[in-house]
Amino acid sequence: MVRSVNVAIVGAGLVGSAFVNQLQSLRSHAVTYNVILIARSTKALVSKTYSPLQLSTWPQDLAATSSASGLSPGDLAAYLEKSPLPVILVDNTSSDALAKVYPVFLAQGISIATPNKKAFSSELGLWNAIFAAAANFSDKPDKKGFVYHEATVGAGLPVISTIKDLISTGDEVVKIEGIVSGTLSYIFNEFSTLSSGSSVVKFSDVVNKAKELGYTEPDPREDLNGLDVARKLTILARLSGLDVQSPSSFPVQSLIPKPLEEIEQVSEFLQKLPDYDDKMEETRSKAAEEGKVLRFVGKIDLSGESSQKVKVGIEKYDAAHPFASLKGSDNVIAFYTKRYGQNPLIIQGAGAGAEVTAMGVLGDVLKIAERVAK
Amino acid sequence: MVRSVNVAIVGAGLVGSAFVNQLQSLRSHAVTYNVILIARSTKALVSKTYSPLQLSTWPQDLAATSSASGLSPGDLAAYLEKSPLPVILVDNTSSDALAKVYPVFLAQGISIATPNKKAFSSELGLWNAIFAAAANFSDKPDKKGFVYHEATVGAGLPVISTIKDLISTGDEVVKIEGIVSGTLSYIFNEFSTLSSGSSVVKFSDVVNKAKELGYTEPDPREDLNGLDVARKLTILARLSGLDVQSPSSFPVQSLIPKPLEEIEQVSEFLQKLPDYDDKMEETRSKAAEEGKVLRFVGKIDLSGESSQKVKVGIEKYDAAHPFASLKGSDNVIAFYTKRYGQNPLIIQGAGAGAEVTAMGVLGDVLKIAERVAK
Repeated sequence: MVRSVNVAIVGAGLVGSAFVNQLQSLRSHAVTYNVILIARSTKALVSKTYSPLQLSTWPQDLAATSSASGLSPGDLAAYLEKSPLPVILVDNTSSDALAKVYPVFLAQGISIATPNKKAFSSELGLWNAIFAAAANFSDKPDKKGFVYHEATVGAGLPVISTIKDLISTGDEVVKIEGIVSGTLSYIFNEFSTLSSGSSVVKFSDVVNKAKELGYTEPDPREDLNGLDVARKLTILARLSGLDVQSPSSFPVQSLIPKPLEEIEQVSEFLQKLPDYDDKMEETRSKAAEEGKVLRFVGKIDLSGESSQKVKVGIEKYDAAHPFASLKGSDNVIAFYTKRYGQNPLIIQGAGAGAEVTAMGVLGDVLKIAERVAK
Repeated sequence: MVRSVNVAIVGAGLVGSAFVNQLQSLRSHAVTYNVILIARSTKALVSKTYSPLQLSTWPQDLAATSSASGLSPGDLAAYLEKSPLPVILVDNTSSDALAKVYPVFLAQGISIATPNKKAFSSELGLWNAIFAAAANFSDKPDKKGFVYHEATVGAGLPVISTIKDLISTGDEVVKIEGIVSGTLSYIFNEFSTLSSGSSVVKFSDVVNKAKELGYTEPDPREDLNGLDVARKLTILARLSGLDVQSPSSFPVQSLIPKPLEEIEQVSEFLQKLPDYDDKMEETRSKAAEEGKVLRFVGKIDLSGESSQKVKVGIEKYDAAHPFASLKGSDNVIAFYTKRYGQNPLIIQGAGAGAEVTAMGVLGDVLKIAERVAK
């Protein structure tokens, strides 16, 4: 008898759609995945009998539901609690409201796989509540809700699983250094290159180009303010053993010039950004004189050498450093640990995009299913 | 009630000892690990009642057993079969004989965690028998024996888990390129450097230095013949979907000069190796003229561009390539896949050493325990 699990998918945008496609294309049939719910903020396709939804027409079927039928987190919990099979909730949103009720889901034995950073990078109390309610590290066999979040840092790159394996087998983090925003990776890889200063590009031009290519959020300030990087660093720092209260409890350099912080319209911001190109150019050319390039980096330092254990901002790197030769919008994360010594364990590659993000989530779903399917 | 699992450890050398130490130091107590057996080739410490061995004095206790009490694979299987708790067999040997009976252990519901490459890189029939007997990808719930082998490539680096996750979620390998021998990484990083030819070192001198530093096998020819790399490539190729018959079914460049192949003594081999330095120097200087360095690389190419899908040998790399700036004895593996596109997913770091190898094995033991502990 093939084991089965029910899957409820919340968030049906780019990542959600890629996830459904990948789930449908699975070649291994060791577990049967029954999708019983697909929802977006204002619409929900729900199998009331918990029998599998017909996936071949889900986009049309979801569109055809009445737009008032969105589900509150409470409705969702009530529905999933009655599932006859173990349930994996796939949260492909970036919703704060849904993240806040993860402990409720987990306590009900509902497992969660998600790229949603909010649950793991907001206040420390929520993090503690989530892992207290989860079965992940529990010695209580009645706890059945597992939570996996590989895609919260580096999308499909094996970042979260690697740091968890290091820690769980007894290694100790000394330092973590990473470029974890695909957008800021692209911007700095273009702005501050190894080829010495022949064709100097303006910072604002690179920001505009990144926006045109779809690498930034619709409002690029959501990338430039550094908060996305700060959220990812919060997650990595907590997994390293630091009790980081929130992503605003350590220094985060914003690339939004102070005088432009109060502007409301994106268009006005982008129009005024060139006024501050000179300042960025000064930083870049100073680094270039030292043979270095600029990168926007998150750092966790537990070695005791630095008084500031976590920080996010612009750093300078020698041409020979692996961060200097990064390409495109790739992420790179270097783990310096007790066991790995001087040379870090490095993971590098695309850290954003619907396909690789969905893959990270699906990998988690497969691992949860191995543990809970019946 | 805390869940428990029995652990049987075969191979008590450097990796085996590091493994026992790490297992004893585990901080999570979600599962209790009872070590019921520690064996080396001619000695075995066995708990006849399946109660946990006293680990604090195991090296002395093992040494004190009578030297005739080594266990045959058959004895081992008979003992483990009667364990009242689920068993994980940790094979820290490089024994062919033990590898050959993995299918028997697995069929009996005994799980296996191992850095032993033999089981996965010998004839294809053994590979197929192992995974047919294992529960890993099975839809038969009566199968209970899982097999994990993270440390067979890259020691503790997340190489095997990454390729398994890529494939299981539906990604496709286009190309894999890697430096997977710590010894040959060190030798070529020293021999062929980016700094252009000012202080030329002799190949034979580097080999001798590597031997002195303990980076090579006692007989360095076991590194120089390329077979260790070929075995690792066989594993990666099979996981990528290729039916590789054996590590000798594709081209493997040996760094042992042809006329020296028949020599018996290591000392005589090392004495005559300098006679062939000129040839290696020619290859190195030719590459240097093109601005390139030499690296000993394994390649898997499924793109259809190459008629030879798997090969192992010396390759040339531009200064800007990540392989060119590798340090010490680090490994590096680049996965080019359909989803990751032009820029590969790269994993880099120490790929040998007792601590990181034991960590890879322990990580597997924790994952198996999550699935089988009772």
